[in-house]
Amino acid sequence: MSWLNILTDTDFTIYNFPLGVFKKDARAQPAICSALGEYVVDLDALHELGFFRDFKLPKRFFRKDSINDYIALGKNITQAIRHRLIDIFSEGKRANSASKFRYLFLHQMRDVQLLLPLNIGDYTDFYSSKEHATNVGSMFRDPDKALLPNWLHIPIGYHGRASSIIVSGTPIHRPNGQSVVHLKEPKPTFGASKRVDFELETAFVVGRNTQIGETIEAEQAEDYIFGMVLLNDWSARDIQQWESQPLGPFLGKSFATTISAWVVPMEALDPFRVPSPKQEPAVLPYLETTGWRSYDIELTASLSSQSFDNHRLSVSNTKYSYWNMCQQLAHHTSNGCSVRIGDLMASGTISAPTPAGYGSMLELSWNGTKPMLMPDGTQRTFLEGGDTVILRGFAEKKGIRVGFGECVGRLN
Amino acid sequence: MSWLNILTDTDFTIYNFPLGVFKKDARAQPAICSALGEYVVDLDALHELGFFRDFKLPKRFFRKDSINDYIALGKNITQAIRHRLIDIFSEGKRANSASKFRYLFLHQMRDVQLLLPLNIGDYTDFYSSKEHATNVGSMFRDPDKALLPNWLHIPIGYHGRASSIIVSGTPIHRPNGQSVVHLKEPKPTFGASKRVDFELETAFVVGRNTQIGETIEAEQAEDYIFGMVLLNDWSARDIQQWESQPLGPFLGKSFATTISAWVVPMEALDPFRVPSPKQEPAVLPYLETTGWRSYDIELTASLSSQSFDNHRLSVSNTKYSYWNMCQQLAHHTSNGCSVRIGDLMASGTISAPTPAGYGSMLELSWNGTKPMLMPDGTQRTFLEGGDTVILRGFAEKKGIRVGFGECVGRLN
Repeated sequence: MSWLNILTDTDFTIYNFPLGVFKKDARAQPAICSALGEYVVDLDALHELGFFRDFKLPKRFFRKDSINDYIALGKNITQAIRHRLIDIFSEGKRANSASKFRYLFLHQMRDVQLLLPLNIGDYTDFYSSKEHATNVGSMFRDPDKALLPNWLHIPIGYHGRASSIIVSGTPIHRPNGQSVVHLKEPKPTFGASKRVDFELETAFVVGRNTQIGETIEAEQAEDYIFGMVLLNDWSARDIQQWESQPLGPFLGKSFATTISAWVVPMEALDPFRVPSPKQEPAVLPYLETTGWRSYDIELTASLSSQSFDNHRLSVSNTKYSYWNMCQQLAHHTSNGCSVRIGDLMASGTISAPTPAGYGSMLELSWNGTKPMLMPDGTQRTFLEGGDTVILRGFAEKKGIRVGFGECVGRLN
Repeated sequence: MSWLNILTDTDFTIYNFPLGVFKKDARAQPAICSALGEYVVDLDALHELGFFRDFKLPKRFFRKDSINDYIALGKNITQAIRHRLIDIFSEGKRANSASKFRYLFLHQMRDVQLLLPLNIGDYTDFYSSKEHATNVGSMFRDPDKALLPNWLHIPIGYHGRASSIIVSGTPIHRPNGQSVVHLKEPKPTFGASKRVDFELETAFVVGRNTQIGETIEAEQAEDYIFGMVLLNDWSARDIQQWESQPLGPFLGKSFATTISAWVVPMEALDPFRVPSPKQEPAVLPYLETTGWRSYDIELTASLSSQSFDNHRLSVSNTKYSYWNMCQQLAHHTSNGCSVRIGDLMASGTISAPTPAGYGSMLELSWNGTKPMLMPDGTQRTFLEGGDTVILRGFAEKKGIRVGFGECVGRLN
């Protein structure tokens, strides 16, 4: 398919062309890039070489420390640039020219530094997996009334902390915080969390600004969604449990949130649309969507430690999300709340219907009551020091594969 | 005190010198400014005139659309600039020179446009008034157990929405949203909120960046606090009530949050320090502070409508806050959460111990059960269309007065 030889099982096929930001070396300036196979594609260098001349972008347009200005070009332009990239790496006159200059714009991904690709104004985390919400409700409330009365009517979500969002590969500090042995026991102690967990999530990136007072209709919401990332919503369950009433999660979450280095544009995910789960009772009219608004993206969570590698903990899928992204964005703006390019809106933990697909250790170990056996004979209920969590996500259909790479963090 | 004649009851005395951002007219570029009496002081013009020459700031340093870069100069510089302003407006050689050029850097405040003064990365809202938390707990839970078990141990807070923070004077759109008649009744409807409320708050502005994993000790926290603003945390009580379990307030808050146009630096508030309320039980060591960490700032909320003006609803005071700002910031970073210059951390509604000082209509009308009589004979439980809420705040002691101006919004 391309003059560039790439591995067949790569996430970064010629159907993908995700967006990221990289530095060639420590002293280099950051620039917007894409990926193909094991290569980073330097868009700044391609622009210098004239491959984007007809888009009339300013000189050095791609020399940026986030892709926000790229997103702001609008879908007409970014889709055209995407098609240009496909062209550059296919066959024909443009491809011939590109292949000659390959050493100027291609870098081995392992040789460069990938940076946080977004300038994130606001970060929202939804709670859109019915399976996850049911599991949590069963554990901490009542298995017979696991879902709260509002859950089937509202895509429940909360505001998260933007400052602690980091790119894949950044080390995770085990947080200190207050916790109690029993919730009703008012004798908190302060110290290192004993229940650090991961959460298997994706997030979408807002692609257009709105003004305060403006709303986005569910049926038009896709115009406002640029792409998706993998997201690990690291959670300190002991801190979270003690602090969360009545205003929700706070320091139990804000010590770190990892996203993948690559933002996959929605165009690349289009072939993988599937119908959303049936919603019963019917949602209110402002949340109604037609057509296929969900995506069949397989998500996995794996664990590495000093004595084992890549032990699969969970296999889930974005298609299980009860609320789709259009509904989430329509709801978020239904009160006139403004959104900005680069805002991140996460799915919440996406758990599959069966335990093999639970998206957090809280659920996998059922709040610590069912330890998981590891390949080295040790057990886990929550994460231990030195553990590395690797999230992966990809879609595949009729030989077309599109993925996110990895979303990795090692807990100190 | 100054060669400039200013009204004696102004908030913007020669002891204040708050920071803001203004535009001379619609086409002008925004610039950082201060205030004295009814005048805006154009710091860009003063810099051009050479009054800040010895600080070695770049040309056009003050031509910015937020004060973030000013804050980033650090307290040594910003305090010196503050003293320079006092000098410029007092007597002596520098003052003589300044008074000659007054037409170049002074503008009537009513003639210019004041803009949102901050680039706010993250916005946190605490819940630090014991009186407010007790009132809310009594209304919605159990008067005998009004405070949840964690409240006396943790400065409870939640992440708010930064994109919907607006400057004083910006009109407020009445939000749409889901609500129910009875909480357990799963028949929500979608429409305009019927219970729009204000919340009387202040907020502090973070003055120094930290890295992820870094903590701020409570005793050192003042080094990281630049100044304070007034804040109205507009709330749609019907939306908030239905959506808030289990993850906290979301769309019931994110339609608008108004802050004053002026950020008062902590140096100006120093004369008004008072001891904080006694904390019983004792707080955990990481939250301990010594000395006077609270401030005696009188806060008022007033209401105007088409048929009455400036009807006083509430008189409260920042000194009632159970948790002080040092404790809030130490807690917020205790898990390693990073903070950035310009981050806003609000107090939560500050209610006084008696009903005349309750800081929201929710409390003043006791969840709508005690309508308030207005000067025109009408009643209010929550806000009506066309109502304007005016928050004010000032400190006064031994003839020294320092205030915030107004924090105003009119509900459509």
